[in-house]
Amino acid sequence: MKTNPGRFFEDYRLGEVIRHAVPRTVSGGERALYHALYPARGALYSSDEFARGCGLPASPIDDLAAFHLVFGKSVPDISLNAVANLGYAEGRWLAPVWPGDTLSAASEVIGLKQNSNGKSGVVWVRTTGTNQHGRKVLEYVRWVMVRRRTPADDAPDPVVPKLADAVAPGDLVLPEGLHFRDYDNVAAGEPHLWGDYAIGEVIDHVDGVTIEEAEHMLATRLWQNTAKVHFDATNRADGKRLIYGGHVISLARALSFNGLANAQMIAALNGGAHANPCFAGDTVRAWSEVLDKAETSEPSVGAIRLRLVAVRQGSEPFVLRTAEGKYAPEVLLELDYWALLPR
Amino acid sequence: MKTNPGRFFEDYRLGEVIRHAVPRTVSGGERALYHALYPARGALYSSDEFARGCGLPASPIDDLAAFHLVFGKSVPDISLNAVANLGYAEGRWLAPVWPGDTLSAASEVIGLKQNSNGKSGVVWVRTTGTNQHGRKVLEYVRWVMVRRRTPADDAPDPVVPKLADAVAPGDLVLPEGLHFRDYDNVAAGEPHLWGDYAIGEVIDHVDGVTIEEAEHMLATRLWQNTAKVHFDATNRADGKRLIYGGHVISLARALSFNGLANAQMIAALNGGAHANPCFAGDTVRAWSEVLDKAETSEPSVGAIRLRLVAVRQGSEPFVLRTAEGKYAPEVLLELDYWALLPR
Amino acid sequence: MKTNPGRFFEDYRLGEVIRHAVPRTVSGGERALYHALYPARGALYSSDEFARGCGLPASPIDDLAAFHLVFGKSVPDISLNAVANLGYAEGRWLAPVWPGDTLSAASEVIGLKQNSNGKSGVVWVRTTGTNQHGRKVLEYVRWVMVRRRTPADDAPDPVVPKLADAVAPGDLVLPEGLHFRDYDNVAAGEPHLWGDYAIGEVIDHVDGVTIEEAEHMLATRLWQNTAKVHFDATNRADGKRLIYGGHVISLARALSFNGLANAQMIAALNGGAHANPCFAGDTVRAWSEVLDKAETSEPSVGAIRLRLVAVRQGSEPFVLRTAEGKYAPEVLLELDYWALLPR
Repeated sequence: MKTNPGRFFEDYRLGEVIRHAVPRTVSGGERALYHALYPARGALYSSDEFARGCGLPASPIDDLAAFHLVFGKSVPDISLNAVANLGYAEGRWLAPVWPGDTLSAASEVIGLKQNSNGKSGVVWVRTTGTNQHGRKVLEYVRWVMVRRRTPADDAPDPVVPKLADAVAPGDLVLPEGLHFRDYDNVAAGEPHLWGDYAIGEVIDHVDGVTIEEAEHMLATRLWQNTAKVHFDATNRADGKRLIYGGHVISLARALSFNGLANAQMIAALNGGAHANPCFAGDTVRAWSEVLDKAETSEPSVGAIRLRLVAVRQGSEPFVLRTAEGKYAPEVLLELDYWALLPR
Repeated sequence: MKTNPGRFFEDYRLGEVIRHAVPRTVSGGERALYHALYPARGALYSSDEFARGCGLPASPIDDLAAFHLVFGKSVPDISLNAVANLGYAEGRWLAPVWPGDTLSAASEVIGLKQNSNGKSGVVWVRTTGTNQHGRKVLEYVRWVMVRRRTPADDAPDPVVPKLADAVAPGDLVLPEGLHFRDYDNVAAGEPHLWGDYAIGEVIDHVDGVTIEEAEHMLATRLWQNTAKVHFDATNRADGKRLIYGGHVISLARALSFNGLANAQMIAALNGGAHANPCFAGDTVRAWSEVLDKAETSEPSVGAIRLRLVAVRQGSEPFVLRTAEGKYAPEVLLELDYWALLPR
Repeated sequence: MKTNPGRFFEDYRLGEVIRHAVPRTVSGGERALYHALYPARGALYSSDEFARGCGLPASPIDDLAAFHLVFGKSVPDISLNAVANLGYAEGRWLAPVWPGDTLSAASEVIGLKQNSNGKSGVVWVRTTGTNQHGRKVLEYVRWVMVRRRTPADDAPDPVVPKLADAVAPGDLVLPEGLHFRDYDNVAAGEPHLWGDYAIGEVIDHVDGVTIEEAEHMLATRLWQNTAKVHFDATNRADGKRLIYGGHVISLARALSFNGLANAQMIAALNGGAHANPCFAGDTVRAWSEVLDKAETSEPSVGAIRLRLVAVRQGSEPFVLRTAEGKYAPEVLLELDYWALLPR
């Protein structure tokens, strides 16, 4: 058997560190494609000059591009036989990724809990992205439900990791040199600064994008995520290709420019759920809610905790859940993250 | 209100200079995408070696890519509430854009004329693209019809700028160092030089390209033009997405390689009209008419003024207008420009 | 007549060398697009660090991207009036292509044989790709059936070149410095080395990709292959666009990562046939058969000769031909090549 069957639940061992295959060097090509695939307009990821004005040596690769590249590497080892991608926690961006950098990824198994039916179980991993200097650029926890190869009752002792509800503001890592002391908010496209956002405030990002099959497949391949559900129209009875959840994350984040253009960098991923599947033909919109605010180690840089919600056509404004407490059927994504913006 | 509602007619002031948001650094990524999005084969924009043979330090970013990037920046301030993009004039390319350059854009309001219905008006702007050294790389005038926020009769005094019918040959700016003294017309793909084209000559560019939704959206996003009509299938009753006019410009220009492969660089945009809307599924063809010829400051470089016409399926050869003088329904674009080619 | 009508059978002369137009400089942009267009995960073409570990100065541009770029240049001179692309032989990769390189192409006519109907004939050419230093990076023979402009009996004396069934192992050219002495098979994604593959072994590469119109057109344009059959939906009565055969080659090769991830570089193209046309909507899968194995001049590098077969939905596993000896209707591609992998 020369092909990769993926790992099943019984193949994971607590504490095991899995090095993922296929390191990847990024360049201006990945940046240009990110701009073609998503309506991304954040000035810091668009302009070397703007980034230099913020204390960085150049414009880094988009923080979500870095996330997708690391995530994509983990798919063959973590989620090839996954039934569901259940959640994210404790995600932190630890260093910018620059054109020319090479990213590698590894995952440590930090939790295992077999389901009572003996057919599947939940696997928690902490995935780390590392650059060619051996420096961590990104880490996050995700947990997935994975099938057993052979249903059975011989479950390992259940270990459910304690995960923070949110990354503490004091644990946010600012890129070296980052400041917003000489911030050019005209170039950024947004007059509102950290002080102008109130906890509880909601923002409708207005614009919508209708997704095509070619687009989400180009994106998902770019991140070397080759899970067949995204590419093979013969895989489901209805002929639909399930869109990679990260495509919706990037789309919603890019749409949030309209109202949050100054939320320049993502510093942490507190949690997230792919509430409903997204398919080609869906028109995606987004809204945000301000959950929290915090100062950082750099006086000119504020942190803002946001709930980013992506919805498709037919959604009610700002409705996340039904009366029963379930996600509304038009909700595609709920993402809880910390962003950095000028004070 | 944190989101950008766009400007309405009554928000513009004569003489006002509007700095547009989101500077953009370009790289080989944008060049590669240009080649993937359009059947572009102009040798000077394809090969560093060919460009060096023409006296340039390397191959610049395509002149129309530079145009689209500058245009895209102006959309949120100029045409978000536009009813129609009415025309272009006095466009000039002033310096090449190189990989690594960062482009910014600004527009000066040079004309205002409210319509008699009090519901909209025409705004004329002169838009300028500038690189990171503060050097102008591009300028052009465009005028758009913009809605009023509140219909009213309190119109400003109408000011309609006097615009040249065409850029005078003496005003064309050649890139520093450009010459065609050692021109390799085999590498360029075309034996015909400046002297071989006659005023009044028409050229059918033969090839056709059927447009897909994913393609025009990738292109339009790449230029950070996020006008919702191009992306949101729920925006019109018929579910169609209007294709960015600049996509048709680039497509037609690329198709014109077959017959005008030596028209290497665009030096000026004399005028243009998006005659009819273009939608996915349209098969675009192009033809050109030689309108004028001129010498330039460099003896080996000639200028040729061309009418480039893009049409869709069903068009009659070389028919621009109906008997009533209106654009034929299959005509998508009429563009009047000066190109530089070897003598 | 300013446009290129293409060459007809009677326009070719034995021994003639045709320089193809439009040299092309490649960058990280082409690499990124290759990863977006194909599910390519070969570590050596993904990571500068991995390539350095194999003795190369950096990660080259994918060997098939180099092939497509050279092939694309030849289309306007060789196959614009082709009825069929009949075969490939004696293909060899002679030097890596690096970001920043500029490729040119030329073809020598090495065979001519008019068909008995006097309406068409077969043209054999040896096409060569050359970099900016004048060094050959690639060569291959292909033969196509080309229409006569004017049907007639005045055929040239038939000359059919003798072509090798396969490139001899001793003629394989290894990139300077290449070795697999310190090979990291975890990073490569595959534990199986040269010694683990047996002649006659077949490998089902499992994954499938459904092709969209936008994707194959983006790819084909990227290689500046502008043959109208790939782009113009009005060109055939059924409105279908014929997918460039090279798109299927790259797709199948990328899919073969799953089972052949260590077959890092293609060294030779022994033969190939586009068995049946491929259209958007087809779901492409691939399987491989090990045809031969050989040592190379570098002890750590082995060569493996593979038959790569691309099929579409409905195919039977490992069925290449029908009982009558014809290609099965679901077979899209049969490609016979030598790859380099660690011993």
